[in-house]
Amino acid sequence: MKEIILYDIPGKTQEGKAWSCNTWNARFALNLKGLKYKTEWVEYPDIEALCKQLGAPASGLKSDGVTPHYTLPVIQDPNTGKVIADSSAVAKYLDATYSTSGPRLFPDGTGVLQSAFSDAFVSACFWVLYPVVILATCKHLNPRSYEYFRRTREETMGKLEEVVPEGTEKGETKWKELEEGMTKVAKWFEAGGDKPFVGGDLPIYADIQVAGMLIWAKNVLGKDSKEWGRISAMNGGRWGEFLKDWEQWSQIM
Amino acid sequence: MKEIILYDIPGKTQEGKAWSCNTWNARFALNLKGLKYKTEWVEYPDIEALCKQLGAPASGLKSDGVTPHYTLPVIQDPNTGKVIADSSAVAKYLDATYSTSGPRLFPDGTGVLQSAFSDAFVSACFWVLYPVVILATCKHLNPRSYEYFRRTREETMGKLEEVVPEGTEKGETKWKELEEGMTKVAKWFEAGGDKPFVGGDLPIYADIQVAGMLIWAKNVLGKDSKEWGRISAMNGGRWGEFLKDWEQWSQIM
Repeated sequence: MKEIILYDIPGKTQEGKAWSCNTWNARFALNLKGLKYKTEWVEYPDIEALCKQLGAPASGLKSDGVTPHYTLPVIQDPNTGKVIADSSAVAKYLDATYSTSGPRLFPDGTGVLQSAFSDAFVSACFWVLYPVVILATCKHLNPRSYEYFRRTREETMGKLEEVVPEGTEKGETKWKELEEGMTKVAKWFEAGGDKPFVGGDLPIYADIQVAGMLIWAKNVLGKDSKEWGRISAMNGGRWGEFLKDWEQWSQIM
Repeated sequence: MKEIILYDIPGKTQEGKAWSCNTWNARFALNLKGLKYKTEWVEYPDIEALCKQLGAPASGLKSDGVTPHYTLPVIQDPNTGKVIADSSAVAKYLDATYSTSGPRLFPDGTGVLQSAFSDAFVSACFWVLYPVVILATCKHLNPRSYEYFRRTREETMGKLEEVVPEGTEKGETKWKELEEGMTKVAKWFEAGGDKPFVGGDLPIYADIQVAGMLIWAKNVLGKDSKEWGRISAMNGGRWGEFLKDWEQWSQIM
């Protein structure tokens, strides 16, 4: 097979070059299925033009409620000529197109459950982590993306330095909310007994969402940072260990 | 096999005699698996003494945070000598004990997903429906249960007539929240394509939770009521149709 192209946003460090939660979700899917692919790096201000050129659909609307909003990941598959945007659509496309490669990410009878899981996980954890890591995410970018990211995010969130100020009560409240959200997810995992993944012995897409969020936090906060230490240690160290299980699928091609 | 005993709380009409969401969850599980059982009716003030006599565990704590709170459903299985409380525990027990009878309610690899589904469904719909039907639920009970239910619920919720007053802005806000919650669940179902159930062609425990909530609303509001008409018509009539699919598993033995 020819290499699939995965479009991703670069971070400014070599170690944390792939950092974005959503593009990691697509990469984890490719790695789990053992498919040949290569990453093309795209800075934020260039995403829209690239998507239009590839014919990739917008993933939603900008905050004005009218203008299409183009985001990554996008994959381009020269084997089929298909261009797919949005990480869960990528996972579903790979399941359907390469059904004999690696585990199914949406096994039969799990589509509705995984949709509910996604909603619940995103509201319990993703949107709570988002403000906690927004400043670190911005600082992790190359200059052109940094400027774009800060300007567009500050339009709705205000100054990024003020979102979760370190060592303040406001900041601690956000951290507490994050721990509550992760604890909720840890309780869901208990219903799976001793199995490491939501899917049991092998990951499904729901697991990818959890891993994608954790690797984002680890890469923008820094693996040796106090903040990543705090997240990885939550719920008896569950999340640091969970991400360790993903090292086998964390290669960047 | 000997008949399993299902302990349930009676409503005051013959048609709506079985009305409780949680005990319907256990009954649906028994009916889906085609197991022999009979219902024993227990009024609210008698539940605690019954549970203690059977050795059924409390399902939680009362609002004082200390006193054990005993609830139904409880099943007593003379074939194994086991007494099981809590509807999801009943479903798991039946899956394990009668593994060749009817569909699996917790198929392999769905435990964690169903735990997340339950959390998300209960917060999006169940706890929003609860105030909407609390007064109708109370009025649906026989005198001893009516008095017990009203007194214990009003300790925390205030006068039941004031919770969702008909035709008021406060009431309409609750109805709007319910429609938003049901719409969220309808979107999850879309991820399953044309399949009727969360589980696909056959129901799993997540489906039972949805059906149990709907049959509760239908029975306490009344099948010909304006209010049940409103719920069943939400999302293009999806919920009335969903509950019709359950008539085959709605017998009361």
